[in-house]
Amino acid sequence: MVGRTIGGKLAELGHEVKMGSREAGNERAVAWAAQAGEGASEGSFADAAAFGEVVVNATAGMASLEALEAAGAGNLAGKVVIDVANPLDFSQGRPPALGVCNTDSLGERIQRAFPEARVVKALNTVNAGVMVAPNELGESTSLFVCGNDRGAKARVIELLETFGWLSGDIVDLGDITGARGAEMYLPLWVRMMGALDTGKFNIRIVKPV
Amino acid sequence: MVGRTIGGKLAELGHEVKMGSREAGNERAVAWAAQAGEGASEGSFADAAAFGEVVVNATAGMASLEALEAAGAGNLAGKVVIDVANPLDFSQGRPPALGVCNTDSLGERIQRAFPEARVVKALNTVNAGVMVAPNELGESTSLFVCGNDRGAKARVIELLETFGWLSGDIVDLGDITGARGAEMYLPLWVRMMGALDTGKFNIRIVKPV
Repeated sequence: MVGRTIGGKLAELGHEVKMGSREAGNERAVAWAAQAGEGASEGSFADAAAFGEVVVNATAGMASLEALEAAGAGNLAGKVVIDVANPLDFSQGRPPALGVCNTDSLGERIQRAFPEARVVKALNTVNAGVMVAPNELGESTSLFVCGNDRGAKARVIELLETFGWLSGDIVDLGDITGARGAEMYLPLWVRMMGALDTGKFNIRIVKPV
Repeated sequence: MVGRTIGGKLAELGHEVKMGSREAGNERAVAWAAQAGEGASEGSFADAAAFGEVVVNATAGMASLEALEAAGAGNLAGKVVIDVANPLDFSQGRPPALGVCNTDSLGERIQRAFPEARVVKALNTVNAGVMVAPNELGESTSLFVCGNDRGAKARVIELLETFGWLSGDIVDLGDITGARGAEMYLPLWVRMMGALDTGKFNIRIVKPV
């Protein structure tokens, strides 16, 4: 769902988008491509990774490394890989635990597994709707990016601005180890969602001017 | 430092406050009591826990269970215990890891160890200065409480209002397992502090009205 939402927004903005799935011809990917417009297509994970200048990892966090292996290290080398996934582990029921946290993170695991990819953790702290329409919150809110490659972060921030995020509200948490904080925020997010009775919210940093 | 700040604020508000330490006569506690005014005194952890109607755990998170054992289960029974600590583990250097997280939390451990105490997790998501002077941020921000006892949470919210927190901005995360989210927010807080170059900040929840 996150992939379809981000892919749809990118297609709407005029980008060519190829949705990757385990196998080309995935029913939901085909349906998505049919309604997302002429720039939209679908294929295998490897097809999508080979196609994109920028790759978005919007797979389920606990399956992301496997999906990216299928995408192929060669197809990711040198590319900006935006990791929007959270390593939510539902194996013990709900609420999910994190499958990796504290002294490691999914973002770091992806960067270690694909050292030639330019991994940027971003967008994982809001739900899919907010990712591509932050304006709907009625007020600008904060978003986090982190990664080892400054150029990649700058490229991602440019892209985020086209979604409606304000660059002044995007906080650079530093290198990819910042993904620990961004991912460990999820248990609080889940509780806030319960208390607010909606996933359509975000946080804004407030400090004295 | 957190204890001295909260204790000082409570004394300023007219409460009688006894600062607990490993042993009565702790040099810094004596100095604190001397300057905090006539309602301020100091003693052992057990002295402080026996004295208070409300007990604040502002010890280092990794030592909190030991400190509360010294305070004594009998002195905590039936009382509201506000747990403001974070289980930061500096044993592997900085940034600290969490000594407990994901499927457990310090708040839960305290509640399990002292089943007759009415534990409320609160204030651990901001630094000491912000805890007692949220107005200095120039705008109202969000704070979280959680705990198994509704009456205890209501009592804590009343107290927080006297610090300047607005009850409408205090989010009840539910039972004490909400402490997982509140504590796992810390790694993000630490990174934000680095990016903002100050610990004097907080977050505000934004959702469409």
